[in-house]
Amino acid sequence: MTGRDAGAPLEPPPGESPVIVLVRPQLAENIGAVARAMANGGLFHLRLVAPRDGWPQDRAWRTASGADRILEAATEHATVAEAVADCHRVLATCPRPRHIIKPMRTARAAAEDLRQINGRGLRAAVLFGPERAGLDNDDMACADTLVRYPLNPAFMSLNLAQAVMVLAYEWWVAADGTEPRHLMTNETHVATKGELENFLTHLVAELDASGFLDNLPKRPGMVRNIRHLFQRGEVTEQELRTLHGVVRELARGRRENGRAP
Amino acid sequence: MTGRDAGAPLEPPPGESPVIVLVRPQLAENIGAVARAMANGGLFHLRLVAPRDGWPQDRAWRTASGADRILEAATEHATVAEAVADCHRVLATCPRPRHIIKPMRTARAAAEDLRQINGRGLRAAVLFGPERAGLDNDDMACADTLVRYPLNPAFMSLNLAQAVMVLAYEWWVAADGTEPRHLMTNETHVATKGELENFLTHLVAELDASGFLDNLPKRPGMVRNIRHLFQRGEVTEQELRTLHGVVRELARGRRENGRAP
Repeated sequence: MTGRDAGAPLEPPPGESPVIVLVRPQLAENIGAVARAMANGGLFHLRLVAPRDGWPQDRAWRTASGADRILEAATEHATVAEAVADCHRVLATCPRPRHIIKPMRTARAAAEDLRQINGRGLRAAVLFGPERAGLDNDDMACADTLVRYPLNPAFMSLNLAQAVMVLAYEWWVAADGTEPRHLMTNETHVATKGELENFLTHLVAELDASGFLDNLPKRPGMVRNIRHLFQRGEVTEQELRTLHGVVRELARGRRENGRAP
Repeated sequence: MTGRDAGAPLEPPPGESPVIVLVRPQLAENIGAVARAMANGGLFHLRLVAPRDGWPQDRAWRTASGADRILEAATEHATVAEAVADCHRVLATCPRPRHIIKPMRTARAAAEDLRQINGRGLRAAVLFGPERAGLDNDDMACADTLVRYPLNPAFMSLNLAQAVMVLAYEWWVAADGTEPRHLMTNETHVATKGELENFLTHLVAELDASGFLDNLPKRPGMVRNIRHLFQRGEVTEQELRTLHGVVRELARGRRENGRAP
């Protein structure tokens, strides 16, 4: 969506962080797209088990969109067992239940578990299968936990890089403190009720002057409706200054056109 | 990761569901990949604002991986305002804060809001900007809310289809009831403590017969350690039957080799 932040280096996170293991990946373009997704989620360690077209492949760098350091640090392995030999925990992404007995996690719960495993200084790996077939039963027998994403069962064709993206995103969010909902005010601040009151007084005064509120029985209700509207959304001090100017200008125009009462 | 479920049709969800609006998308391949991600998350309605290479484009169908109905139903529009004219709420994905005053949501909070907007029978649109530049300030002025994903600030290059994937995933998860953590047991069930006790009794009896527990002062501690190991993880009834067989066979082998005491 946006270009890479200028000069922001991609460094391996301090301490342990989950290892992404691509098992028999077919397309080098997908390996590059996986590295890009890993970089988005702050993951760094990539291992490749028997990539179909060998490794390295230029086409991977072309789709990595700058996540080159992840590809440069990626290691190639002959078997899943070899790729995870130094890991304490192995999670396997598995789109469908198989006839096996295994702990299951959603992507979100898996990310929370990975944060906890990391916090204990243990090394975890997450297996992703080949584009077409996914992991086979022998691959999954190397894992202690299966990860299944809750996604539309009517359309299970999940792109490899997007599967990694969802996990990398959940990994990042699991340690993220962003306020889920807030008003971005930048240079200004949310108006105080006093500042809002000043504007409403100004507005009602000009509406009185214009004759807009001359119907006295209706006046209180009309004023209340206007108040309700402006109370409803958070207004900033900067926006109130603009609104003061709008009312002032419209009123002056009216007077200059001699339509004042 | 896996092939499309055979014959699972892609239907527009009943009632309202969020409209994905791609603003000035550049690559038809990305439009196809977006449709695939939408299908993964159960979204259906796609609108294109001034796609660079025109519409339709065969290359989009090639990357949609079967999400053809979403592409066939996609509509083309000249401007953002035209594309969202019939929508009640407009969210705009925005990777960075701009100097504007606008409510912000994380992807997760946005998905929760979208479910709530839908529940009220209102139509919401989510804007995604062009691959290179993202949405411009005029695009964002058409939105009532901005959505920013918590992701690695050191690497902001987020692929368009992956940006849609994250939102589609959160949209699906916001209404998903999957147990985050459970043991997948398939045909069998988690063993009762009684079934586990039967096995431990069998095992200890054979260990006694083998002389493995002859060190009487150490015996209680050794038995406890074995019990702790088997109590630690959930064991299923099927696995216990296998373990009974393993102990039986190992013990028989020992006897037949005349190594019984």
